Amino acid sequence: MAEKTNTEVLIGGKVFTLSGNESEDYLQRIAAYINGKYSEYSKVDSFRRQPVDMQNILMQLNIADDYFKARTQVEILQEEVDNKDRELYDVRHELVTAQIKLQSMEKTLRELQDENNENQKRIVKLETRLSSEGREEGKGKRNN
Amino acid sequence: MAEKTNTEVLIGGKVFTLSGNESEDYLQRIAAYINGKYSEYSKVDSFRRQPVDMQNILMQLNIADDYFKARTQVEILQEEVDNKDRELYDVRHELVTAQIKLQSMEKTLRELQDENNENQKRIVKLETRLSSEGREEGKGKRNN
Repeated sequence: MAEKTNTEVLIGGKVFTLSGNESEDYLQRIAAYINGKYSEYSKVDSFRRQPVDMQNILMQLNIADDYFKARTQVEILQEEVDNKDRELYDVRHELVTAQIKLQSMEKTLRELQDENNENQKRIVKLETRLSSEGREEGKGKRNN
Repeated sequence: MAEKTNTEVLIGGKVFTLSGNESEDYLQRIAAYINGKYSEYSKVDSFRRQPVDMQNILMQLNIADDYFKARTQVEILQEEVDNKDRELYDVRHELVTAQIKLQSMEKTLRELQDENNENQKRIVKLETRLSSEGREEGKGKRNN
């Protein structure tokens, strides 16, 4: 675990010393984010007119609103990830099925090609026999 | 756009009237979340010992920390979605390639099968001619 460190941050024009495990860089980024809200709000008359405790609550609500919106985005994205996982599963399944079919077709193709070659040879043999017997017969006939 | 409504929320034991476009339900959920933080913190001595302005800043930092963590989660999930999109693109591409190959193989298979059938028929014809000519020749020989 990281050691506790003291970090000075300037928030709403006041310096606060924070002690914690978070890195100084992280705390300064959070402080900058909160200061952004303070400077936004300081331009709004209806905010400046509020008593300090109301101003604090409005700040908290505003930050919490950002958090809730980010959380909603997390839920939407998580659902998207789940949907894409299901889609990926389906497409991968289809791909495997197609690949198995391809393999079996390649086997059938090879067998058919072998059969074809055998048939071609057989045809050549038969034709050779036929033509030679035809010649024999022809000779026989001429001899008659 | 939704009409502005006034909603009373109880935060940190005080009632505040909020005027805004957010639904009452949403504001009450945010209030409940902030109250959860107050009741957590109220158990921590080191928090109770802090002056009120420091308590406020700590509350803001704590809520902002939740927000930053949710935002990090959003970034991680967004990257995951992008990765899965790329993966899906690749697998779909592979599937289409396999399907095109399958179609072309089916065509080749049909052609080979046709060729085979033709060859079979040719073989039967040739064998029939050979056997009939053999008989003819046999007859001829016997006649000699």
